[in-house]
Order: sequence, then C-alpha cells, then structure tokens
Amino acid sequence: MISPKRQMHLNLFLLSTGHHETSWRHPATTPELITDIHYYTKLAQMAEKAKLDSLFLADALVLTPAIKYKVSAGLEPFTMLSALAMGTERIGLIGTVSTTYNEPYNVARMFASLDHISGGRAGWNSVTSVGDVTAVNFGMEQHPKHEERYERAKEFLDVLKQLWDSWDDDAIIADKESGIYSDFDHKIHPIHHEGKHFKVRGPLNICRSPQGYPVLVQAGSSEAGMNLAAETAEVIFTAQDTLEHGIAFYANVKQRMQAYGRSRDELKILPGFSPIVGVTQAEARDKQEQLTQLASIELGLVRLSNLFETDLRRFPLDVPLDLDALPSIDQVKGQKARFQMFCEMVQQHNLTLRQLILRTASARGHYTVAGTPEHIADVMEEWMTKEAADGFNVMPPYFPDGFEDFVKLVVPELQRRGLFRTEYTGRTLRDHLGLKRPAGKLVLPV
Amino acid sequence: MISPKRQMHLNLFLLSTGHHETSWRHPATTPELITDIHYYTKLAQMAEKAKLDSLFLADALVLTPAIKYKVSAGLEPFTMLSALAMGTERIGLIGTVSTTYNEPYNVARMFASLDHISGGRAGWNSVTSVGDVTAVNFGMEQHPKHEERYERAKEFLDVLKQLWDSWDDDAIIADKESGIYSDFDHKIHPIHHEGKHFKVRGPLNICRSPQGYPVLVQAGSSEAGMNLAAETAEVIFTAQDTLEHGIAFYANVKQRMQAYGRSRDELKILPGFSPIVGVTQAEARDKQEQLTQLASIELGLVRLSNLFETDLRRFPLDVPLDLDALPSIDQVKGQKARFQMFCEMVQQHNLTLRQLILRTASARGHYTVAGTPEHIADVMEEWMTKEAADGFNVMPPYFPDGFEDFVKLVVPELQRRGLFRTEYTGRTLRDHLGLKRPAGKLVLPV
Repeated sequence: MISPKRQMHLNLFLLSTGHHETSWRHPATTPELITDIHYYTKLAQMAEKAKLDSLFLADALVLTPAIKYKVSAGLEPFTMLSALAMGTERIGLIGTVSTTYNEPYNVARMFASLDHISGGRAGWNSVTSVGDVTAVNFGMEQHPKHEERYERAKEFLDVLKQLWDSWDDDAIIADKESGIYSDFDHKIHPIHHEGKHFKVRGPLNICRSPQGYPVLVQAGSSEAGMNLAAETAEVIFTAQDTLEHGIAFYANVKQRMQAYGRSRDELKILPGFSPIVGVTQAEARDKQEQLTQLASIELGLVRLSNLFETDLRRFPLDVPLDLDALPSIDQVKGQKARFQMFCEMVQQHNLTLRQLILRTASARGHYTVAGTPEHIADVMEEWMTKEAADGFNVMPPYFPDGFEDFVKLVVPELQRRGLFRTEYTGRTLRDHLGLKRPAGKLVLPV
Repeated sequence: MISPKRQMHLNLFLLSTGHHETSWRHPATTPELITDIHYYTKLAQMAEKAKLDSLFLADALVLTPAIKYKVSAGLEPFTMLSALAMGTERIGLIGTVSTTYNEPYNVARMFASLDHISGGRAGWNSVTSVGDVTAVNFGMEQHPKHEERYERAKEFLDVLKQLWDSWDDDAIIADKESGIYSDFDHKIHPIHHEGKHFKVRGPLNICRSPQGYPVLVQAGSSEAGMNLAAETAEVIFTAQDTLEHGIAFYANVKQRMQAYGRSRDELKILPGFSPIVGVTQAEARDKQEQLTQLASIELGLVRLSNLFETDLRRFPLDVPLDLDALPSIDQVKGQKARFQMFCEMVQQHNLTLRQLILRTASARGHYTVAGTPEHIADVMEEWMTKEAADGFNVMPPYFPDGFEDFVKLVVPELQRRGLFRTEYTGRTLRDHLGLKRPAGKLVLPV
C-alpha cells in the first residue's frame, strides 16, 4: 500500500484587482468594484468551491502616492471578513492587523468576535507595519524601530492569548431557574498583565471563541520575524523567489522551532505563488506578456523608492542599479527581508532599474510561474516534495479570470495527483490546517 | 386637503436577549445564541420587514461582575454590523464606538468600510465610555475626567470628518488607457491635523463612502453631552422617564441647536421606549408581571452600585433610599444624566432600594409601556404630537417574541394612523432619516 502524499494547503491572497501591480489596467478586471463587497464575496465563494483552506487580506494603515498609478485603497479587514463570513461556510478568513497601531484589548475582542461570527474560521496575520508614513497617522513623528516593534509585537500577542484564555470554555452556566448566568468567580479570569508596553486588567468582554485563538499567521522573514514566527506562528506567508531560497528558508524556520519546543507540524510555511495559467504554454506566455505591457515605470519607481527608502526617481533607468547608493540593510527600517532579496536579485543578474521594476511588478518578488496546468502543478509538487513549502499563498495576477483559471485548471490537476483535498473534512480553519485548538486555562494546571 | 402627519423614525435597539435585564431567564429567550450571528440576522430581517429606519448596538469595553447574573458579553459592533449588512438590504446599521479608547484613523476607516459594505447604511453612536473599570483595560489607572473625555470626543469627531472628506467624491479616475488611477495631487488631501489630543496626517486609505459620513448619533444627556449633540449629532438616543421630561429635553436640545446655526430638522431625537404588548390590557399586564418575577435583586445591586459609584450591598433594601449617602452629581464620573434621573425618581416617589431596582430593571430607566397595540400607539402618537420625540429607540423587553409583538401588532397600527412608512423610499440611512449627505470638500470653497 502506498502511503498518501503529503497534502498541500492553499490560501487565496485576495487583493483588489489582482497581484500584478497594474492588474487594474487589464481588460478583464473591474477596478470600479474594489469597495464592493459582492465582488469579493464571489471570489471567496469561488475559492471555497475549490476547497481552499483560507483566504487572506493584507493591510496598510496609510495611503501612499502609489494610489496615483494603482488601486490600493480597499475595505478594512475586520469589516470585510465579517461580511465574507456570511457569504461562505467553510473557508478560513485571515486578516492582517498591526500590533503597532492598535490596542490589544480591542484586537483580541474583534478576532474573538470574527471567530464566533464565522463559526471558527478566523486567522490573524500580525504585522508591525512599515514606515514613518504610517506613524504620522497615529500621532507619532517616527515609526518605532524594528527591534522595538518586534518587542511590542511579542508582548501584544502574549496579552491577546491571555485575553482569549480569560474565559474558560465552560464559564457560561445560563441557568434560568437559579438566575446564575456565569461562573464569574471561578471561570472568568482577570489577566492583570503589566508589561513594558501594555497594562491590561481583563477579562475579555466576550466568551471564548470556537477556535480558542484565531490561527496565528506571520509574514516577517527578517531575523526577528523568523524567530517570532518559529516561536509563535502557525502559518507563515513568505516571499521566496527561487526553489533553492524556498528550501533554505523552510529548513531554517523549521529548525528554529526546536529551540522553542515546537514540532515541525505546528507551523505551515506557505510561500507566495503567482500562477499565470494557459491551456498551452504559448497562451500562458501571451498572458504574461500582456501583463508586462501594462506595467508602469512611474509606479515601479514609487514602489521601489519605498522599499529601498531612497528616492529612485533621479536614478538612471537603463544602467545596472548602483547598490552602493542604497542604504545598508542595518539602516533599513521597513521590510528588511524583501530589501535583501531585491538587492541579491540585482547583484546576481546585473539588473537595471527598469528590469528590476518589470521583473517584480508581477507579484512584488513572489515566485511567478507562467505555464500549463500540468507545468504549474509540477512546480507546486516539486516545492512540496523538496520541502520548500507546506502549501502556497496563491496570488492570482488578476481577478477574477486569473484566479478562475487556477481553480478550474490547476486545482483539479492537484486533486488528481492526490496532493489536495476534494472535500472539506472539518469545519474550522484549524481543522483545515491540521492545527490543534489551544487548550485554554480550563485544562491547564493553575 | 389634510397635511400628512409628521412621520416617526423607529430604531431597534438590538441587545442580546432583550432589554429587561433578566430577559435571559424568560422562557421565550435563547441566551445560548448570544454569540450566534444568525440569531441577530433574523431579528434584523424582522426589523427590516417592518420598515424600521435602523438597528443599533450599544457597547462597552469592559466585562463587569454583572455577568454573574446576566447576559452582557456579545459580539463586537463593527464585525457584527458588517455581517448583518449581508443579511439585510435597507435597514440602517448603527454601532457604538468609543472616542476614548480608539485611534481616530482606525475608526474613520472602519466606518467608511462599513458604509461601503452596507451600501450607505452606517451610523456611529459615539460614546466616551464609563468608569475606571474600562481604563484599566487600556493601560490607564483612571478613566479621564468628564470634561476631558468630551474635549477629546469633539476633537476625535473633527478628525474623523476631515478624514472622511480627505477624498473628493470624484478622486478616482481609473483610466486603463493612460494608467492614471486617481487624481492624487488634486483630489485626495492630507489633513495635517494637529490638535491637543491628536496628530493625524491623512489622507484616509479608503475612498469616500456612499453617505460621506455615517449618520452621527449621540446618547449623552448631560450638559456637555447635550451641547455636543446640539452642535454635531444627527440622532440622539435618550432616556426620558416621563412625557413631561421628554418634552422638556426635546425643547432644550432643539433650542441649543440655534446657537450652532443648525435647523431643528437636522437632528432627530429618539427617546428609548420599551413596549410590552398584549392583545388585551390584561395580557400585557401579565407579561409585565412575568418579567418582574424574573428580576434579580443581586443584579440590581451591581447595576445601581455602578451607576451611583457607591457599594449599595450594605444598604438596607426595604427602607427609602438615603440619597445623602450617594456622591453628589459633580463627583460622579460616569453617566451623569442617568444618575440624576434615578435620584429624582427616588425623591419623587420615596422609593426603597428594592423598589428602585424593580422599577428600573425593565429598561434601565427608559420609558416602559405595557398595553394593547392601540394604547401603545396612542402613547407614541402623543409623544410625537407634543414634541417629545421625532421617533423612538425601540427596546423590546425580550427577543424575539417581545419584538415580534411590536412589529406585528404596533407597527401596523402606526401605519394605519399614517405615522410610519409602509415602504422604504430611499436606499441609505440618511435617506430614511431625511438627512442630507455631507457635501465634502468637492463643493466647498477652498
């Protein structure tokens, strides 16, 4: 008897008109619908019909000048996911929420609420946000430094777990006869947290949710990000531009988990993956070429100026990019891992600024494959077999057609190969991902 | 030709198992469903079928010991209203959000998002929260003082309006040909707010919503609350225990509006109104008696101890309440208007503590009427005619039956009398309330 293949997990990264940064210019997209919840509901239902584990929303607490050249201001994650919960039944709903510009009590409560509303399908991608541009919307001059943000993020998560555990699962009695509603004295606990960044009495003002905690997701791939993920995350979204980088990252993070006494299975690594699907290889290439034609150099300059924390508009476009004119990795305040990846890309291929813009316009540095369903499934299988991934964060280049191609052509191919479920077997996002429900105080020794 | 009667506005105050504080003990209620969104969806649909203007969620950022004796921890307003938006099409969705324990940028964005999701049905009941018990969940020892909270609330609202206006209505161009998505340079505006409490650069990261601003609601009935409402609110929820008090409050607030250059119609005053409906007067009285039997003295002591900011558990239950043992109105930090109303009630009727508990258990001091549909409609019509109300904040004693009685028996009676709509004529909550959409920067002189 052949042992069954390791099952992959698939998440839909839902983003306005798509992941190619000028996808809104593609004839198939409808940028006028990016604040229309029914547009997203249809995409979520498409993902659920294909039995994907979850969908995911990124987020930023700032509007940047990039809005001049691209769609970038959409619905807020909590409100949007709660609405999507009503149009779907099984698919997980993962939202990005910043630990830098929110109060832990409010965030703990909103996730518990979303988890109740969705019947146990909530996930939290915690981020520390980027840039002084965000700070100035929240009364600060400067964005806190990388280390301080991560320190705060860790304490934030700690507070949230305590709040989510502040009600035992059996705290509610609701005995109409006696008039006792809850065992407030024994089964609902103030947390009395007093840390460097937060002081929170608790308990939370909502009972424990179906999953106990939302699934804990992280996307930071810097040193601090990898350590925090190895210690606390249950899912990692990461950008890996080659299979080799993917294998190295996967081994690195799973290795780090040991130090925290965690087993490898408790964390699923999902690299970003942008599929451009054609019935033939030629069709796929045509689709890719059409997208490249839509790319905007102006927009690329804005995007890379942000990433490199340098105004690139005065740089020549068609000579190899001068890396010495950029800050060093230590000086960078924002996305350190992405910064490093792009510098290596330039170095390795001696890219001009224009080439770097075009190469990264498709999915901001995430792995992009154009090909037939079989070819794309081959690549995905290889990443699974060689342990570069536990599944993928699927980033369709444009919606809805680019995603429809994936669910109609690639997913069935993955299912035929026995790599992906043909039916949901559980109800909650933790069920889909094979993650345990945190026990809570109820069964812990006091 | 007779001129049509002034139309009343009706809001459903949606609250767990109902407004009688021990409604969860009533045989018809289902306290096990208070975190089940489908339970609330059915109630919202019932309200929409009856053509109510809106539904409303109260909120608190703390769990109090009252949870021992009553249902009080439910879903968070933004997540819950977004979900309810998907199960309804016309009814307004009003959520309570604190200006004391939130960041203005986040709140502005969530309301804009909810307004987009609901197609222009969002309303914001802004509160300043109550008590040190809340402060300790947010890193503070003490709740800010009344005046400081109101000062902050006013600035908070000012920031939100600026953020909601930071995109002109026609800022999005989305020209696929040229690649220009928005007129960032001319029609999207940073706000550069620098005040005593907040410093916010902006612009908001979501385009202007269908209503421009959510409908602005307030519930404070203290001096500071009335002034803020007269200056800025579009709807007031208020507790008035007699018709005479209602008339005085109505005249008082509408009078104050003049000083701010506002017309009386720009603000709708909706007193709380708890109807106990019986087909006969005797049936109504039986229903009321059944509720009183369920009241809990322990719970009443907790509730009134909070309001009076005094531990009442050592007070005798069956002698007239000693008002001199309570703090003076100036010393009270929390709900000043409610404090005063209850003191006057005690004084006027020489109430014992037990009597005060039972009398206010039905709807926490809001006007309660038990009677036939005709009698209840008579009372409502009288409040309208005598200018004590522009409509009502309907607080059913228990859900769903207590509300179903109201929509099946009282609403048709109001419609027969020409006092309430039989169909929605507009799409947005502003339409239902006859409120203008704020113009935004677009048509203002710069």
